[in-house]
Amino acid sequence: MDTRTGLPVVGMVGGGQLARMTHQAAIALGQSLKVLAAADTDGAARVATDTEIGSHTDLDALLAFARGCDVVTFDHEHVPTEHIRELVKAGAVVRPGADALIFAQDKRAMRERLTASDVPIPRWAPVRTKEDLTGFAHGNWPIVVKAERGGYDGRGVWIIDGPDGAPDGVDLIAEERVPLLRELAAVVARSPFGQVAVYPVVETVQRDGICVEVLAPAPGLDGDRAVQAQDLAIRIATELDVVGLLAVELFDTGTDLLVNELAMRPHNSAHWTIEGARTSQFEQHLRAVLDYPMGDTSMTAPAVVMANVLGGRPAQNADMSLDERLHHMFAAEPAVKVHLYGKEVRPGRKIGHVTALGDDLEKVRASAARAARWLSEGGEER
Amino acid sequence: MDTRTGLPVVGMVGGGQLARMTHQAAIALGQSLKVLAAADTDGAARVATDTEIGSHTDLDALLAFARGCDVVTFDHEHVPTEHIRELVKAGAVVRPGADALIFAQDKRAMRERLTASDVPIPRWAPVRTKEDLTGFAHGNWPIVVKAERGGYDGRGVWIIDGPDGAPDGVDLIAEERVPLLRELAAVVARSPFGQVAVYPVVETVQRDGICVEVLAPAPGLDGDRAVQAQDLAIRIATELDVVGLLAVELFDTGTDLLVNELAMRPHNSAHWTIEGARTSQFEQHLRAVLDYPMGDTSMTAPAVVMANVLGGRPAQNADMSLDERLHHMFAAEPAVKVHLYGKEVRPGRKIGHVTALGDDLEKVRASAARAARWLSEGGEER
Repeated sequence: MDTRTGLPVVGMVGGGQLARMTHQAAIALGQSLKVLAAADTDGAARVATDTEIGSHTDLDALLAFARGCDVVTFDHEHVPTEHIRELVKAGAVVRPGADALIFAQDKRAMRERLTASDVPIPRWAPVRTKEDLTGFAHGNWPIVVKAERGGYDGRGVWIIDGPDGAPDGVDLIAEERVPLLRELAAVVARSPFGQVAVYPVVETVQRDGICVEVLAPAPGLDGDRAVQAQDLAIRIATELDVVGLLAVELFDTGTDLLVNELAMRPHNSAHWTIEGARTSQFEQHLRAVLDYPMGDTSMTAPAVVMANVLGGRPAQNADMSLDERLHHMFAAEPAVKVHLYGKEVRPGRKIGHVTALGDDLEKVRASAARAARWLSEGGEER
Repeated sequence: MDTRTGLPVVGMVGGGQLARMTHQAAIALGQSLKVLAAADTDGAARVATDTEIGSHTDLDALLAFARGCDVVTFDHEHVPTEHIRELVKAGAVVRPGADALIFAQDKRAMRERLTASDVPIPRWAPVRTKEDLTGFAHGNWPIVVKAERGGYDGRGVWIIDGPDGAPDGVDLIAEERVPLLRELAAVVARSPFGQVAVYPVVETVQRDGICVEVLAPAPGLDGDRAVQAQDLAIRIATELDVVGLLAVELFDTGTDLLVNELAMRPHNSAHWTIEGARTSQFEQHLRAVLDYPMGDTSMTAPAVVMANVLGGRPAQNADMSLDERLHHMFAAEPAVKVHLYGKEVRPGRKIGHVTALGDDLEKVRASAARAARWLSEGGEER
């Protein structure tokens, strides 16, 4: 506890943009986020006073970090669960707990658990050999293979046309390639008390396995289907005893909603909530892990679009500095809000996002895309 | 410049809540605000990595601080103008400049300047003796006397019934006590390029000389009158060559708008813009001092109310911690947004503010008042 203010101290393991934006939300709540960053150049380390440098796989660093925190939570899902259990043994409060977080870390464990709960997911199986792959595909190539652990943002996922396409030396699961209309996400926050607060269901638009755009609410989604997705998220959060945010990535096949992946932290699919919902996902995550009552999740406008800004793509104006691009973007789109992550620009790297909102989805979407293009490529036309 | 991102570094002199909230805005712009704070317990010092400790009256501290900044700006108006001129001589870019800032520092200089520009202000005169006071009042007591320099939040202002009521040892101006309907504020941002962006005119509700509530837009304000107030703000910003934010506090007498005070920094009367306008005053101030194009100032809802949270007032639940109060407030008002400044609670001290918004002013106002009461007094009823 902060003895001057009487307010709690939340520690976040990981110093990326999620911690950076959570720090902004913590400031409003009278706090200062405590961050365990891998390096002092991490996005959150550059803006949060109370940053320690250390590895999320170093138990001693974690134990030292947790000592100053009322609650420990995460910017990513890569902290080993055995370390989390040691933290709890040492008296730390860790949210979400290891028993929940394992299902965001381990794609096989997640699928076994969701199958046991009758949650609809694509057909899958653990695979260890080429024979396993051939048996699973049953002639229906391509199939999807995923590393059981460690993947994110399209990394650790392969679409293969035959048994030789799978990577070696990685524990894999195979999954049928579902014919889908689109991808959706349902994000819910849950407190230790058990209160849940769910955001409107969004459509996530992917390119090369990376989410490039989020449309809130998911356009044309039937009301019943939206409630079904929200119910699914609430049910998973409750059954898995998640505390904090849970993002449920979904495949919309037109007839079914199938769970693709789970994340238990603030998530790219809810960045739109900073301006687009009464309570941002970052504030909501803090409220949840602190067992505060949840904030209002209603939207601030009928249509909200978030577009990711990817760095350094080859373009006509690649020599234009990010600062110049920002000038042009602000001149072109005075109502679009920008969030830059303090990162060095590298090809394909998410360096920020933009949010546009208004009454007309197509106009809002065009504004967000235009703003993201100015920041990514330094130009108006593709 | 930040060599990793290619983005500029803004330095703010003063580490209070204005710097704290400006840091939140800087983070979104990919920056980290550099802060010169008086103590490491200051609101901004507790949340901003790049904080130096030093006095705003110490020229050496200011010079050292300015070296790392692309632009230097202010959380308050107490930096001596001669120091600002030395900073500029040393190569610093300071916005607003000394020639503008003097009119926010010196109430006499401001009144002389506005008189020369035919800007309507209450009748006033510099006073040095009891005879000056008696002559100014001309039998019409009470009158208002103000310290020429150093006042804020009702400090440095006295209402006196006779010549003996004025404080000794302070250079004063006297001002007629204007019969007024209410107080208004018009806030405008201006860039070095000369672009201006003005916010909707608000009503500021005062109690004991401290602003307790801001209503946006000012209820029942005639459209022409609102434009008149905005024009006045734009004219003053332009004539005084203000860069950054200018807050113009106004008396609404029912027939006239008279300028009361000027501030050249983010201002309490525009805290509502964080959630209530597309661009917050903190982001707008950064955009202005960086000569970025200005952001959209339109409102996000028809009615927005900001209520200040004053600390430690005697109440039925004075022993309830701020953290407990926050729990109750969130439960009572899940859509109200809170901003706490990381301060130790002391009687009458502004420790934060809350913002409510919606379609119906009276409901929004009741929500904001209720939330502020929970945080101030730990209870529902007054």
